[in-house]
Amino acid sequence: MKLSVAATTQALSPDTVFRLLERVREKAPRVHTITNAVAQSFTANALLALGAVPSMTIAKEEVAGFAASADALLVNLGTLDEARRAAIPLAIEAARSAGKPVSVDPVFVNRSPVRCAFARQLVEAGPDLVRLNQAEFDALFSDRSDADTLISEGTVFAVTGQVDLIESRGEDFRLLNGHPLLARVTATGCAGGAVLAAFAAVEEDTALAAACGLSVFNIAGEIGAENSGGPGTLVPELLDALYAMSARDIEMRLGAG
Amino acid sequence: MKLSVAATTQALSPDTVFRLLERVREKAPRVHTITNAVAQSFTANALLALGAVPSMTIAKEEVAGFAASADALLVNLGTLDEARRAAIPLAIEAARSAGKPVSVDPVFVNRSPVRCAFARQLVEAGPDLVRLNQAEFDALFSDRSDADTLISEGTVFAVTGQVDLIESRGEDFRLLNGHPLLARVTATGCAGGAVLAAFAAVEEDTALAAACGLSVFNIAGEIGAENSGGPGTLVPELLDALYAMSARDIEMRLGAG
Amino acid sequence: MKLSVAATTQALSPDTVFRLLERVREKAPRVHTITNAVAQSFTANALLALGAVPSMTIAKEEVAGFAASADALLVNLGTLDEARRAAIPLAIEAARSAGKPVSVDPVFVNRSPVRCAFARQLVEAGPDLVRLNQAEFDALFSDRSDADTLISEGTVFAVTGQVDLIESRGEDFRLLNGHPLLARVTATGCAGGAVLAAFAAVEEDTALAAACGLSVFNIAGEIGAENSGGPGTLVPELLDALYAMSARDIEMRLGAG
Repeated sequence: MKLSVAATTQALSPDTVFRLLERVREKAPRVHTITNAVAQSFTANALLALGAVPSMTIAKEEVAGFAASADALLVNLGTLDEARRAAIPLAIEAARSAGKPVSVDPVFVNRSPVRCAFARQLVEAGPDLVRLNQAEFDALFSDRSDADTLISEGTVFAVTGQVDLIESRGEDFRLLNGHPLLARVTATGCAGGAVLAAFAAVEEDTALAAACGLSVFNIAGEIGAENSGGPGTLVPELLDALYAMSARDIEMRLGAG
Repeated sequence: MKLSVAATTQALSPDTVFRLLERVREKAPRVHTITNAVAQSFTANALLALGAVPSMTIAKEEVAGFAASADALLVNLGTLDEARRAAIPLAIEAARSAGKPVSVDPVFVNRSPVRCAFARQLVEAGPDLVRLNQAEFDALFSDRSDADTLISEGTVFAVTGQVDLIESRGEDFRLLNGHPLLARVTATGCAGGAVLAAFAAVEEDTALAAACGLSVFNIAGEIGAENSGGPGTLVPELLDALYAMSARDIEMRLGAG
Repeated sequence: MKLSVAATTQALSPDTVFRLLERVREKAPRVHTITNAVAQSFTANALLALGAVPSMTIAKEEVAGFAASADALLVNLGTLDEARRAAIPLAIEAARSAGKPVSVDPVFVNRSPVRCAFARQLVEAGPDLVRLNQAEFDALFSDRSDADTLISEGTVFAVTGQVDLIESRGEDFRLLNGHPLLARVTATGCAGGAVLAAFAAVEEDTALAAACGLSVFNIAGEIGAENSGGPGTLVPELLDALYAMSARDIEMRLGAG
């Protein structure tokens, strides 16, 4: 993806990343997360290890209350059943009205036209942040100028891959952290998306929040992979690394440019 | 909480706790658990590590059959969707009719008025055991004499916090085990609630069952936290500790008084 | 179970098992899995550790598309709620029409007559593979000649227990791998069933695929149990072992005869 919006690519400093991480730990933002059933436990544990507070109800009677009283909302479209389909618009409306940042993860839209159509509506409404991979991006935007328009109106895109790109109407970021073993664990992208949402809860510059949040999650993934013997032990080790991450971890590992 | 019901606070002996743990291991009680999607896997694994047998269906066609043929029922209100809302009264009715102990965990009722109203109905029907934290207790009972009435009629309350209180019309218990890292892992309270339900399945004195079950779970949490490098490795280590818990572990660690 | 279909019991060679494992790793088959909420995360991680690609949606609008574009379908009946009940026939029909192998795991049919009736319909329609334990087999088939008829028409049965039996109209297999600690972890059978489905995706001889897949999963269970301190650490260690399994692991451990 090279979007036509004029933007300069910024380097991230380790200090900035750690400062935002510390802010998340101090403020302990509540992140209401509507996510797929496969990802719920790992996502909740990633938020708790980070220092944020997850809630996950999808009941249509109460989702608006949870979303409005949270500090950020994440909507992930994996396993998009009827209950989630009903809950999502209510949650987004409530978060919007309360002025809370909204993130959307259009998981697997490249595998399901129905889901893609549903996701397109959510994305075209202009959430603060959209996290997706290149295949999902291509499925959503046959015409790339549609994405450019959304970006010019303020939506930030985090396009994950070997290099992660943060695209915004302000700064862009190229992020290089991560580890191939993460692809052998379910829901790492979903859990990472929740970390981004937690950072967006404490930093108004959404592109900066996304860049810092994604770097922190991917550095935890690197440490977790190195401390593990495979994809099974990676998960607990990643969570331990997220919990314990120090300024020095970030300084030694941050790859952005 | 200091409830007005006259009650004496009892000390627990390590022998009593271990004796009940051994009874759970021998009888392998079936615990039907209607719990939130985030907690299901951890809860099932906690029951299996303990030596109990979990089942978790919420299908309205079959939940009564599972509840009636189980040795205890646990109803946890996290992620209270429509299917669970329909299943819960059927399961409680079936467990009651079959004379099996019923536990209720009114998770997050302080975050959702709808859930609080639903929970109040369940609690006012007088389950054998209600497990909740102080904030949830305060949300349920604006008038504390309502809780006192329930207690005088036989419901046991387990109010968790830095000190856990078991309040009953008979004995009360103050329990001191646990570890701060447990708060950084999702669904530890929910999984602990299932352990309490398993103990209630093998011991008619529900207050004693709750005190022993909570102590066993929290001691496993202490051992797990000490053997772990953070909240990620805590979960598998806690389960290992629950599986392997010895009379000596309990003797060395039990804090109650 | 001793079925009346004339069949010879075959020995499996370690070479055959490893050759099929390598084929799964090379082809990375997509396995669409409709499974119970408790098992989803472990099942997805088992497939990823193996080298397969899981998808798990149960939304009735999109499940046919996922099933048709996958290389195999697994239907597991644990926590059989309304959404799953609606999705399952759509998924099976789509997989069948696309010529993809269909596996059915009739979990806990011995605990629920409603579920048993539903499962009987699925099994009588003649899926490629049915995985179940002896109690579930007995609940499904009061008359064993019904099972024989299905086998003679091409359905393969994998009956798990201390010894696992693969029964087919061609070869039969007796499989001896596994570890008692697996019974103390939730959803190991469900995750193992997904591994079988992944093997069936790359090998037309379903009985051979089932025998190899079950052996690989159970050998991973043995290694995981030996590397763990209990049922909690068993899960990550099993996944690591599945990911790293070598020809030598299989050669040293394979028990079949």
